[in-house]
Amino acid sequence: MGLLVVGSIALDSVVTPFDKVENALGGSSTYITISASYFSAPIHLIGVIGSDFPEEHIKLFEKHEIDLGGLQIVQGGSTFRWGGKYHYDLNMRDTLFTQLNVFENFNPVIPENLRNSSFVLLGNIDPALQLKVLDQMKNPKFVVCDTMNLWIETKKTDLLKVLGRVDVLVINDSEARLLANEPNLIKSANSIMKLGPKYLIIKKGEHGALLFGNDTIFSAPAYPLQDIFDPTGAGDSFVGGFTGYLHKSRELDFESLKRAVIYGSTMASFCVEKFSTGGIEDLTWLKIHDRFIEFHELSRFADE
Amino acid sequence: MGLLVVGSIALDSVVTPFDKVENALGGSSTYITISASYFSAPIHLIGVIGSDFPEEHIKLFEKHEIDLGGLQIVQGGSTFRWGGKYHYDLNMRDTLFTQLNVFENFNPVIPENLRNSSFVLLGNIDPALQLKVLDQMKNPKFVVCDTMNLWIETKKTDLLKVLGRVDVLVINDSEARLLANEPNLIKSANSIMKLGPKYLIIKKGEHGALLFGNDTIFSAPAYPLQDIFDPTGAGDSFVGGFTGYLHKSRELDFESLKRAVIYGSTMASFCVEKFSTGGIEDLTWLKIHDRFIEFHELSRFADE
Repeated sequence: MGLLVVGSIALDSVVTPFDKVENALGGSSTYITISASYFSAPIHLIGVIGSDFPEEHIKLFEKHEIDLGGLQIVQGGSTFRWGGKYHYDLNMRDTLFTQLNVFENFNPVIPENLRNSSFVLLGNIDPALQLKVLDQMKNPKFVVCDTMNLWIETKKTDLLKVLGRVDVLVINDSEARLLANEPNLIKSANSIMKLGPKYLIIKKGEHGALLFGNDTIFSAPAYPLQDIFDPTGAGDSFVGGFTGYLHKSRELDFESLKRAVIYGSTMASFCVEKFSTGGIEDLTWLKIHDRFIEFHELSRFADE
Repeated sequence: MGLLVVGSIALDSVVTPFDKVENALGGSSTYITISASYFSAPIHLIGVIGSDFPEEHIKLFEKHEIDLGGLQIVQGGSTFRWGGKYHYDLNMRDTLFTQLNVFENFNPVIPENLRNSSFVLLGNIDPALQLKVLDQMKNPKFVVCDTMNLWIETKKTDLLKVLGRVDVLVINDSEARLLANEPNLIKSANSIMKLGPKYLIIKKGEHGALLFGNDTIFSAPAYPLQDIFDPTGAGDSFVGGFTGYLHKSRELDFESLKRAVIYGSTMASFCVEKFSTGGIEDLTWLKIHDRFIEFHELSRFADE
């Protein structure tokens, strides 16, 4: 059975120190599904757009064989829009505007034929909506969840309910410290694991990622990029590659999750090399695998 | 031939959120020589102390079979003293006081019989003194150099002269960005490599370390410590373990340098577990090797 992805679809206006774009394709489920599409199929996208959503973006999803049966199109409505500006060091960004538009009243309805999807990927949206999705699913085999500081701060009760029902939580380091209210990252991870998830991934941007399992830790390196063009979507591309790889392999042991983290890191590294989805639109399996091997070379050493 | 180490020897007063010590053994060459002593011999310490230096610390050096033939003892003088206070997150510290005392007029004189040492480790001291040491050496095979933001900001001309004569430069990430005047760490590394060193190590604290060679990068993980007791001396313990391992193995190819970075990280991880030199005083080769293997387990994944 398929991989069901729920999240936002947006038109992003992004300014970086190098260039800018307006109304470019964005949103968590956009990056997630395109990234996952290189690994597995079928991928079912649950989301909402307005009738202003450009046809070329629909064509891009179709080119990647993403099933749009669960995509709601609100006639006369406007698609969710987000504007952001990155600072010189690219780790800092300001949100310039957020226009929720049709996303404001988004009610994720899972089509009957998709309720037995084996994999569920809850992109970074309101945990109340993530719960609604889980309530409609029939015993999924593997649930991956992304979230952010906004929901930790404003929707903690709902978020904690979600965490009790997921296999993997994916967050960044500052979110982990916030969620656990603890400055030490390893202690934070141990305390978050007690909230429910079997596995925890902490993304650390230019410092790689940590995967926590039952008394086990894996440290993944970051790809040494000299030019980061646009960080938007890196985290979503990561979780898309991570989950797509596992959906393909069907192996869910720690060793497989380690490789999935590297494939996720690989997709994130491609994502930031261009604006919008430009970095992950035209990849090939060979390119992806070559970079996976580069990651292996980067962190390998002999234990004598 | 031996490993010659030059650096500071100090009595440190350190306050952390957990505890405090006064006049504890410290200084860059103290941590370096004790750390290196688990890997190789002979290790020759070049430094200066006052006649107030406690006999028990001399005994500790002797227990680790560190040659003190190059140690100057200034009769009636006071040993270099440093006081620091760490903040709650331990990545931030304030210097409370610095009393250079006998270190103020330190003139590193290398005894004639040590001038043909094959390995030279220049601990973090004024680059003018590092140059003085290099000028006395007879064609050393391998030179490792540590430095800090103070020297990058105030003694850049001398520092650049040193960099033209070393095999490995070891600095932390903020120092690398400062030295290269560039926010991207990979670009910083490439530009620093052009200043002379064959290899560059960038320490990233809780995020591990990067080793740069000729068009090659190795990313070393950090040991996942839940309790960091006192970060003082971690960088010195790192460079001591790194250089000590290479001095023992005598292999200076990139694969050996990778393992040396892991042994350096291993020693740093032990160092921060206790105050002063407490974390590295009573180790065994078995304990060190076990942690090296833990590092390997932490970052290993199959390339399928």
